[in-house]
Amino acid sequence: MNVTVIGGGLIGTSWAALFLAHGHRVCIHDVAPDVASRVRTELRRIQPFMLQLGHSLDPEGPGLSFEADLPRAVGQADVVQECGPERLTFKQALWANVEAHCKPEALLLSSSSGITASMQSRKMKSPQRMLVGHPFNPPHLVPLVEVVPGKRTSEDAVRRAREFYAGLGKRPIVLRKEIPGFVANRIQAAMIRESVALVRQGVVSVEDLDIAVQSSLGLRWATGGPFKSAHLGGGAGGIQAFFQQFATGLQLLWLHMRLRPVLLTGRTKQALIAQVKQSYGGLSIDELASIRDQQQIALLHALQAPTDKE
Amino acid sequence: MNVTVIGGGLIGTSWAALFLAHGHRVCIHDVAPDVASRVRTELRRIQPFMLQLGHSLDPEGPGLSFEADLPRAVGQADVVQECGPERLTFKQALWANVEAHCKPEALLLSSSSGITASMQSRKMKSPQRMLVGHPFNPPHLVPLVEVVPGKRTSEDAVRRAREFYAGLGKRPIVLRKEIPGFVANRIQAAMIRESVALVRQGVVSVEDLDIAVQSSLGLRWATGGPFKSAHLGGGAGGIQAFFQQFATGLQLLWLHMRLRPVLLTGRTKQALIAQVKQSYGGLSIDELASIRDQQQIALLHALQAPTDKE
Repeated sequence: MNVTVIGGGLIGTSWAALFLAHGHRVCIHDVAPDVASRVRTELRRIQPFMLQLGHSLDPEGPGLSFEADLPRAVGQADVVQECGPERLTFKQALWANVEAHCKPEALLLSSSSGITASMQSRKMKSPQRMLVGHPFNPPHLVPLVEVVPGKRTSEDAVRRAREFYAGLGKRPIVLRKEIPGFVANRIQAAMIRESVALVRQGVVSVEDLDIAVQSSLGLRWATGGPFKSAHLGGGAGGIQAFFQQFATGLQLLWLHMRLRPVLLTGRTKQALIAQVKQSYGGLSIDELASIRDQQQIALLHALQAPTDKE
Repeated sequence: MNVTVIGGGLIGTSWAALFLAHGHRVCIHDVAPDVASRVRTELRRIQPFMLQLGHSLDPEGPGLSFEADLPRAVGQADVVQECGPERLTFKQALWANVEAHCKPEALLLSSSSGITASMQSRKMKSPQRMLVGHPFNPPHLVPLVEVVPGKRTSEDAVRRAREFYAGLGKRPIVLRKEIPGFVANRIQAAMIRESVALVRQGVVSVEDLDIAVQSSLGLRWATGGPFKSAHLGGGAGGIQAFFQQFATGLQLLWLHMRLRPVLLTGRTKQALIAQVKQSYGGLSIDELASIRDQQQIALLHALQAPTDKE
């Protein structure tokens, strides 16, 4: 495929590395005169990491080109991945310009972490093919991509975006509402807030807090998100037993943390339990726990080697 | 060392596995008549995991004994690790009984996640040697132990607890205030709250939320906690640049998430920056980032194999 990356900064270059490593032709649009040398320097830094992940990447190869003229840069693109400045007026003008010069079937994706597709596409004639594909940095290493359609994005464009990212070995998830911070950054913000509060109150040092997260929650969540972990945290009774044991304590803890409680009503719990069973019910708790424990040991081994270098 | 584990449930058995694997003699005190067979069955399940971590564990060996009589169970103990029911009256009576029959230098540790050492030790004559050593489950696999002294715990006991857990390959951190949920469970609670809110608002499914956490935040935090990650998230400028770029957005996001903001005042930021520099300033941002990227790749490789089995 022909993929045009708009913006040759760190995120654009990381995307470009990933696209090239998966055999796409990449054209980078950036008006900075030194963009080619900056991008190639960064690609050379990334190259050995991609190799370790089993992908070759040639920073000097014919698959990579640069084009300072926007109409020419997007003319042949099957996919455009925008990584420009986080300014609404810039993005609105950009997309109107892009759609005037790209193929009618081109898929238009923005890496924005904060400006929604509904806002970005306001001046477009064909907003149905424009949506957000927000990576967690750096995109060449971290699997998550948050796919966030706008109000006027078509389901077909959502499907194509999901397939495009999955084809790159990413783990795309689709958000059904355009909410500030999307999913990962909101969860991260909740965590940073409590971390700052704990250090500021003198409960723990910065370094000990980092150790706590690395050597418990990080390890746990790398093998399963909060709902899967709760399902296993309930023992043989799964997520239902988890709520029975911990729902009250959790809500009390939220109060103590001065967090407005999210009420775990019977209805909320039932809805969560149903989704957990649908997602993970195919395996028994014992099977899921055994997979988790195996992964945890593999992670502990993996972390050992580089940690020794520190 | 002679380590007495009080309570032969899942946590007590997991601790026992870890103690045995590190060459300690373990006596389990539990009044249930079938405790020995239950514990040995669970130890056989744990055995192959410990082997993978490089430790042998013999569920039938002479290092493990059972004693239903408390005075006899603690008489020779160098360390007592309590894993009994989470009831204040039980624990207060227990410690008074333990200290009447154990050696004067025995170190007394409670696995409690919620009842503080200050409360537990209220009926003790020598509360200076009693404190909380709270594991993140299961203790034989997860490195974190939260060491939480009570108001009357001596610094010497804190030091001995830290050394004892470090000697087991754990990563102990010391809390300087007895706060509900300690550190890891508070951070986890903040995260679960936002996760439940996002699913309940229809932003994302349970399964996609789990994928989001696993394939971004989990992976990231397994290689570095929130402050180290912020330090690297700021690019060449480190934690200072992170605050310049993100402090305002973070505080706005907290408001949108209906979280009472923890104000990132100049003074708060300066204190955090100073601690981050003290903890991580020995290496450049480039060096730290390179270690993180290497670890991330190692983790991705480690997760690949077992995930394929699913």
